[in-house]
Amino acid sequence: MTTSRPVINDPYNAFCQDSDAFLPGEPGGPLEGLTFAAKDIFDVAGHVTGGGNPDWKATHQPASRNAWVVQTLVDAGAAMVGKTITDELTRGIFGENVHYGTPVNPRAPGRVPGGSSSGSASAVAGGLVDFALGSDTGGSVRVPSSFCGLYGLRPTHGLIPLDGILLQAPSYDTIGWFARDIETFARVAEVLFAVKDLDRTRHTRVIIARDAFELAEPAVAEALLPLVRQVGDLCGEAATEVLSPQSLAEWSGHQQVLQSREAWDSVKDWIDTVNPRFSFEVSDRYVTAREITDAQVDAAQAGRDAIVRRMDEVFEGGPTVVCLPSTVSPAPPLGQRVSERHTLRLRNSALTSVAGNTGRPQLSIPAAEVDGLPIGLSLLGNRGSDLALIALAREFVLSRDGAG
Amino acid sequence: MTTSRPVINDPYNAFCQDSDAFLPGEPGGPLEGLTFAAKDIFDVAGHVTGGGNPDWKATHQPASRNAWVVQTLVDAGAAMVGKTITDELTRGIFGENVHYGTPVNPRAPGRVPGGSSSGSASAVAGGLVDFALGSDTGGSVRVPSSFCGLYGLRPTHGLIPLDGILLQAPSYDTIGWFARDIETFARVAEVLFAVKDLDRTRHTRVIIARDAFELAEPAVAEALLPLVRQVGDLCGEAATEVLSPQSLAEWSGHQQVLQSREAWDSVKDWIDTVNPRFSFEVSDRYVTAREITDAQVDAAQAGRDAIVRRMDEVFEGGPTVVCLPSTVSPAPPLGQRVSERHTLRLRNSALTSVAGNTGRPQLSIPAAEVDGLPIGLSLLGNRGSDLALIALAREFVLSRDGAG
Repeated sequence: MTTSRPVINDPYNAFCQDSDAFLPGEPGGPLEGLTFAAKDIFDVAGHVTGGGNPDWKATHQPASRNAWVVQTLVDAGAAMVGKTITDELTRGIFGENVHYGTPVNPRAPGRVPGGSSSGSASAVAGGLVDFALGSDTGGSVRVPSSFCGLYGLRPTHGLIPLDGILLQAPSYDTIGWFARDIETFARVAEVLFAVKDLDRTRHTRVIIARDAFELAEPAVAEALLPLVRQVGDLCGEAATEVLSPQSLAEWSGHQQVLQSREAWDSVKDWIDTVNPRFSFEVSDRYVTAREITDAQVDAAQAGRDAIVRRMDEVFEGGPTVVCLPSTVSPAPPLGQRVSERHTLRLRNSALTSVAGNTGRPQLSIPAAEVDGLPIGLSLLGNRGSDLALIALAREFVLSRDGAG
Repeated sequence: MTTSRPVINDPYNAFCQDSDAFLPGEPGGPLEGLTFAAKDIFDVAGHVTGGGNPDWKATHQPASRNAWVVQTLVDAGAAMVGKTITDELTRGIFGENVHYGTPVNPRAPGRVPGGSSSGSASAVAGGLVDFALGSDTGGSVRVPSSFCGLYGLRPTHGLIPLDGILLQAPSYDTIGWFARDIETFARVAEVLFAVKDLDRTRHTRVIIARDAFELAEPAVAEALLPLVRQVGDLCGEAATEVLSPQSLAEWSGHQQVLQSREAWDSVKDWIDTVNPRFSFEVSDRYVTAREITDAQVDAAQAGRDAIVRRMDEVFEGGPTVVCLPSTVSPAPPLGQRVSERHTLRLRNSALTSVAGNTGRPQLSIPAAEVDGLPIGLSLLGNRGSDLALIALAREFVLSRDGAG
């Protein structure tokens, strides 16, 4: 066991240059020999959690203990080798941080890595670590998974303890992780879900979410739909359904309202006191959040309740997995205009909010490429079916790669 | 004539540390021997005009020529010895710049200098230069004049050419200057207004703006009202009037709308392209500005037209000067909450918008102290009466100081 931090060559600007956080793994655990990185929202004792914003970092004290998830992984033998860059206070899904620079997308040069778990995705995709921790409130694991060609899970809401993590919107916050291969991905899952008695029942029913595929670029739908049919073959039964009687954009609108209100409540006092430097884009989201009325929140909550009921209906009829694109497109170019990113974020949120609003797990699989750029296929399951989703993904990969 | 920049000891953080702009004065001119500083919104050939924001500075080229006003002062013999810190893109009246630090108020330690011409006021109040250039769109010369105990003029709108200046809202923008003494102040005026045929008619009528004094803290009104009576004695006739049939806050509201729209229009493309780092407070103002509707602009323009008509009425009956407090209070403490500054800014804007909405000149005189802190008395005159206002101020000072 070594206690000195290994030197990491970081050609991708994935790691926080101003942190030397390092935790060796306990010998003998199931993850012994693996290295991982943690988005700079996870507490590591003795280090300030920076949250992707220099004023946040400057106005907070070092953490007194490790986040539960970090400690659990280290106890299981994995070595935490560094903190990674995040979008400011996790507000963003593209990964362009104006203070610390944008982590490189090793799979798509000249394009964003996705965010907000940008550095974690970059570090894994670039082979700097075996896996990495992120968080997902509105897509922050699923989007970079899709853009960087990785496995990434938004777990069932509430399943993994969030102690010691700088999060955003409690009723949407989850933590997740990235890996390049399904075997490593599954090993981490067994550790993080070890204390839970999760349902491992095999999925027997696939729903192809027509409205979700219609939101994606045609080339994305074209690339993913044959794979969805393979998933259907594995499960036995497949049907196409429209998830939202209104529109997925309207569903996403409810999350925008509720998540924004929660996000504003979580930092408004700090913002009022510190007057922090944010990118215009991030301030814009907070100002917009501040202006949301209680009546809008009530209406959105009623909308969210209806979404939960509708998705419960979709999941009736046996162990079901819903297939949808992880993102509407592959990674967009770096340096788009603020207004362009805003539009594209909302389009992607229409996909990610299905799991967000219902607390369901969603696993993004590096399934295909469009014009040489990775694109993720998502498996969305019932609450608590996280391990079953991962098992299905493994089965799919084995089958696709000809080993099945 | 020397061309090397003199070393400036700057204990007040008034000057831009990242600029070495310097222009020696032409020998033999009426301002020979005087030194001045220019807010970092005035072009100096070969230097990037930074505007108080590092991303503005990083995305702009060096100026190709000097601003008209800078060139005019240098031609008249004054030496430009440095650029001074400004609120970001002149958006603010308190002078707290999160990127470059807050210039010290030499007259009120622990308190803000006022803004947005913060560094210029600080440099003059601290005796680092003889005078300094600022700009005034919504109070950015008058407020720091009041807080730092200086003479400061918002000139008649349109009187001084604005070529080569990074401004904000064309229908409100003016440039002005600060000095510690009325003699220096007047020398600069004679140079800057030399090409104009300004009305020097002596004021014969003083209006005490009751609604303006009612907005000020009681101690401010108490300190200033005896001095107003002295001004009245000098002019011959004095009367108390309520300026606004609605309220000065409503008048200010019209300026908030119109100025905000113009300010947003002037930078929206740059913001959308660059996604600059601003303090939350500054982004907040731009986001709020972006959301202003055309209908709100139309209503505010109608309101502004009515203000112009009402103030024309007030000025009927001979050469008139309106007396009002320059600010509602002395300089507030450093580090107030964003929400507190917002409220206090609006209260001050109710005073400053009278001149702003009508294009009239307003001269702030370092008239009194409240609890040892400077507070300015303002003389608001008719359009083109700038030199007459300065003459009245000189007469007032001579009379007050016992030399009259």
